[in-house]
Amino acid sequence: MEMYRTHECGKLSLENVNQEVVLTGWVQKRRDLGGLIFIDLRDRSGIVQLVVNPETSKEAHEIADKLRNEYVIAVKGIVVKRSENTINPNIETGQIEVELKEINIINEAKNPPFFIQDHIDIDETLRLKYRYLDLRRNEMKNTLILRHKATTFIRNFLDKHGFLDIETPMLTKSTPEGARDYLVASRKHPGHFYALPQSPQLFKQLLMVAGLERYYQITRCFRDEDLRADRQPEFTQVDIEMSFMPLQEFQDLMEEMMVGLFKETIGYEVPRPFPRITYQEAMERYGSDKPDIRFGMEIKDLTEVFNNSEFKVFRSTIENGGQIKAINAKGAAHYSRKDIDQLTEFVARYGAKGLAWLAFKEDGVKGSIAKFVTEEELSQLRLILEIEVGDLILFVADSKKVVADALGNLRLKLGKDLNLIPQDVYRFLWVTDFPLLAYDEEEGRYVAEHHPFTMPRVEDIPLLDTDPLKVRAQAYDMVLNGYELGGGSLRIYKQEIQEKMFKTLGFTKEEAWDKFGFLLEAFEYGTPPHGGIAFGLDRIIMLLAKRNNLRDTIAFPKTAGANCLLTGAPSIVDHRQLEELHLEIKENIKA
Amino acid sequence: MEMYRTHECGKLSLENVNQEVVLTGWVQKRRDLGGLIFIDLRDRSGIVQLVVNPETSKEAHEIADKLRNEYVIAVKGIVVKRSENTINPNIETGQIEVELKEINIINEAKNPPFFIQDHIDIDETLRLKYRYLDLRRNEMKNTLILRHKATTFIRNFLDKHGFLDIETPMLTKSTPEGARDYLVASRKHPGHFYALPQSPQLFKQLLMVAGLERYYQITRCFRDEDLRADRQPEFTQVDIEMSFMPLQEFQDLMEEMMVGLFKETIGYEVPRPFPRITYQEAMERYGSDKPDIRFGMEIKDLTEVFNNSEFKVFRSTIENGGQIKAINAKGAAHYSRKDIDQLTEFVARYGAKGLAWLAFKEDGVKGSIAKFVTEEELSQLRLILEIEVGDLILFVADSKKVVADALGNLRLKLGKDLNLIPQDVYRFLWVTDFPLLAYDEEEGRYVAEHHPFTMPRVEDIPLLDTDPLKVRAQAYDMVLNGYELGGGSLRIYKQEIQEKMFKTLGFTKEEAWDKFGFLLEAFEYGTPPHGGIAFGLDRIIMLLAKRNNLRDTIAFPKTAGANCLLTGAPSIVDHRQLEELHLEIKENIKA
Repeated sequence: MEMYRTHECGKLSLENVNQEVVLTGWVQKRRDLGGLIFIDLRDRSGIVQLVVNPETSKEAHEIADKLRNEYVIAVKGIVVKRSENTINPNIETGQIEVELKEINIINEAKNPPFFIQDHIDIDETLRLKYRYLDLRRNEMKNTLILRHKATTFIRNFLDKHGFLDIETPMLTKSTPEGARDYLVASRKHPGHFYALPQSPQLFKQLLMVAGLERYYQITRCFRDEDLRADRQPEFTQVDIEMSFMPLQEFQDLMEEMMVGLFKETIGYEVPRPFPRITYQEAMERYGSDKPDIRFGMEIKDLTEVFNNSEFKVFRSTIENGGQIKAINAKGAAHYSRKDIDQLTEFVARYGAKGLAWLAFKEDGVKGSIAKFVTEEELSQLRLILEIEVGDLILFVADSKKVVADALGNLRLKLGKDLNLIPQDVYRFLWVTDFPLLAYDEEEGRYVAEHHPFTMPRVEDIPLLDTDPLKVRAQAYDMVLNGYELGGGSLRIYKQEIQEKMFKTLGFTKEEAWDKFGFLLEAFEYGTPPHGGIAFGLDRIIMLLAKRNNLRDTIAFPKTAGANCLLTGAPSIVDHRQLEELHLEIKENIKA
Repeated sequence: MEMYRTHECGKLSLENVNQEVVLTGWVQKRRDLGGLIFIDLRDRSGIVQLVVNPETSKEAHEIADKLRNEYVIAVKGIVVKRSENTINPNIETGQIEVELKEINIINEAKNPPFFIQDHIDIDETLRLKYRYLDLRRNEMKNTLILRHKATTFIRNFLDKHGFLDIETPMLTKSTPEGARDYLVASRKHPGHFYALPQSPQLFKQLLMVAGLERYYQITRCFRDEDLRADRQPEFTQVDIEMSFMPLQEFQDLMEEMMVGLFKETIGYEVPRPFPRITYQEAMERYGSDKPDIRFGMEIKDLTEVFNNSEFKVFRSTIENGGQIKAINAKGAAHYSRKDIDQLTEFVARYGAKGLAWLAFKEDGVKGSIAKFVTEEELSQLRLILEIEVGDLILFVADSKKVVADALGNLRLKLGKDLNLIPQDVYRFLWVTDFPLLAYDEEEGRYVAEHHPFTMPRVEDIPLLDTDPLKVRAQAYDMVLNGYELGGGSLRIYKQEIQEKMFKTLGFTKEEAWDKFGFLLEAFEYGTPPHGGIAFGLDRIIMLLAKRNNLRDTIAFPKTAGANCLLTGAPSIVDHRQLEELHLEIKENIKA
């Protein structure tokens, strides 16, 4: 018989009844019921039930009897309507089945090491080793299909708005901050190395100098660093840069893209415009530069309230220039001492030396600082924190940074613990006005928070001379549900601002040219005003698909240890390969 | 004034007359004519002429006076119709000009090292070093725009036909034939290396095992090899794989894609279906597996004709199992001895020990073998080679391989020399039935011509035991104007054929598993019939854009020596970076 299908399994419906069809795919399941054999046949489109009746075809029945899960088969048969009581509402094709005349075993299959079905509870290492089986499962397959739809949407959106897809090099130059560069050895240039790009930043700026005006690329980037749960050594970036476009117009366009993406791929309506919040405000209200605004529980500043506190810790914190802030854990007044001890341990991870608390119970205010708090203070707390009976107030008194870190993370933890975070909403926002500089104690100088080409806010430029840490950058992040989806900035395009920036960073002109020579040279030949953004595609897909880790969004990901469990990369290579590269592995490692 | 444009330079037309516009861009040219200053302003869309009249704005005139080429400016003015005698038919906007009221210098520019215009005759190394200026030139900018349009078309075509864009790893495992792999050192796994992919071949086959059915990816591939004029160390592949689809249907789809691509991007109508020719026939008729069929001059076999030749060289060639073949260089009978000596030198490069010739002149047949050729032979030659007076016939007598190489290349050379190749046509064809195996004298065994998973023609499978070199593969190339655009094959999906193949290649089962373990293991879990193709995108763009080298199709290419002249990659890296990788460069190179 012919091996080529006339229809896809998952697309058969009542409309096909009485048609003869050829189908191909994998055996999902086989059951023998009173002489009839039922087969669930799976292809990319879905599953359909096949019925093999020995009275229709003895030969087909004999073959069906030999089938095992994951065999690849081609079948021919007639689509029939199922009787009312056998309709399966759980699958798309549940109203019909196919009565087989012929079966052809295209390929046999060993018994897979795990079931090809959703929500299996097995070790991820096994899934990664047998990724080609893992990807047969609906939830994985559907994530890849969603990823395809998302990139297709993004590309077409950017194309429509005049952005050109331009490829930039993968074999490029190690940068001065190349500590996390992956190095590539070169046969033709022994002792010399290419670096894999951490981002196409320099090249996209060069494309703006080249007058291409609007660029995008969905491209792989690489970072050789300790891997966190949500990082991969290679990751995909939606990289965008534009010239001659007002920032507001550009950000509007990026909003429009995200709104379209969520609508087209998962049918979710994101409201516009996205809220905007400055970095400073985000840190104050949420203790985070990527606030999850799906729920409230904002951090409130109580430093004023406790100006004359009897509580020594509060008073000395204020005297030392610190802050007292708190969150209201709604309805958590019933938390036990043990619960609160655990929260205290939790905030300790972020440097907080303690966690003061007040529980507002039916029978009064209890808590670690209850005896120090005056009625006047209590009434102010009630107002500021909108306290009701049943609430638990948690205080951290410390430096600004520790307070933000501790309460920001505590807020997220309690949001989850208290089930305050709606799981089916997407809340976007822009975080703007990031600081331009940080002070590096180790190097004893200011360093760029983003990169040294980030444009300061024009009105802050004089502060570069007087108070550099106060300078706000024209830098912005798009944040979704507590994740940074992407970040960008306007770039410096004026020589005099660039020179001022380098001076602030403590570079002489020579040092600056040593580090960024070819880019600085390019900037001398007529640089337009430009800026851009880079989104983390893997993370966008993770949120769209409601998956819990980035690995589930990638066909062949690496482990946290940067290993590919399927292929065994990285691996030891033939010594001849190293010889050709004029490289030696140090003795202490060779073993 | 506002710095943001209301219009693009190249899109202004008579429809905009009397409108006030803001434009931004680069100064292409500035002329001072009797007090009026004329500026050609360029942005990505094109060029428009600006006029600055000191009587309209003294200030604008003073600024205009300071402008130099490649300054970045923003201007405000009124669009006016040009008088009849000043219309410039050479530019799109030649019917109008813009009378300026204001100019704002956004950025100055140094004098560029070459003119920003098409058809400049300067050293390519200078263009590569200042690539951001080179890309400002129309012909380069337009090639990048064409590339964008081409990839956009291909993606949307494949999306429409159910192919999923799935990303495969860049950090992967060095393959057993990894001689040309680029190696990436890993900080976390000292002494271990990733390899950059030469192609996603294994992963796309795994995606078929995973049941994704139709995959595509426009992706970077890497090969560390001696670079020819038309190779880059990193190149872009349009990689496609499908399951459960008849080969003919797949090839039809690929034809449809190419036809659509050429129509959409450059408006060229490619006729379908593409001609098909077997590898064997291509070698016989054109001496090449990627024949340029834009012209005739086919190679004719004359071995039979010269069976009883008096010419000793011909006779001994035949006795030794060789061939006598010739091409008809139409109208080249006037070629001088010197011309023919040069052609003889040319074929010598391909191993031909000589080049016999006959010139059919008004006054008779002349030539190196004229005196050996009988009337009977001449009349057969006239028939087979369709000889007319004025033609030059060139013969090579040698082994099959040398004859094909020498005459195939001679044909291409004469096609160019005699101007027989129409420059404005595209002639596609499929070359099919490539040999499955070659014999490697050095290794003393058969080796796969493509890769060991290529499917033989089913009727040839028994020949694997008896005459392996005769086995034809289900492998095919798409060829255009003498270039291989892409190649592919059906893959082996049956264990018993795969085992037979390995046996023919001289591998024991253990050796085969050593080399291809994880893929062979995957094939055991239910492999569908599958196959695919990979196109070289850079080459497609080169042909579409009628450029002469691949570098012109790539924004930031490498030289033949694999250097990036713009960034200086590859480069020496900080010794601390190597220390972290536990690598040492061998002493003899360090200097």
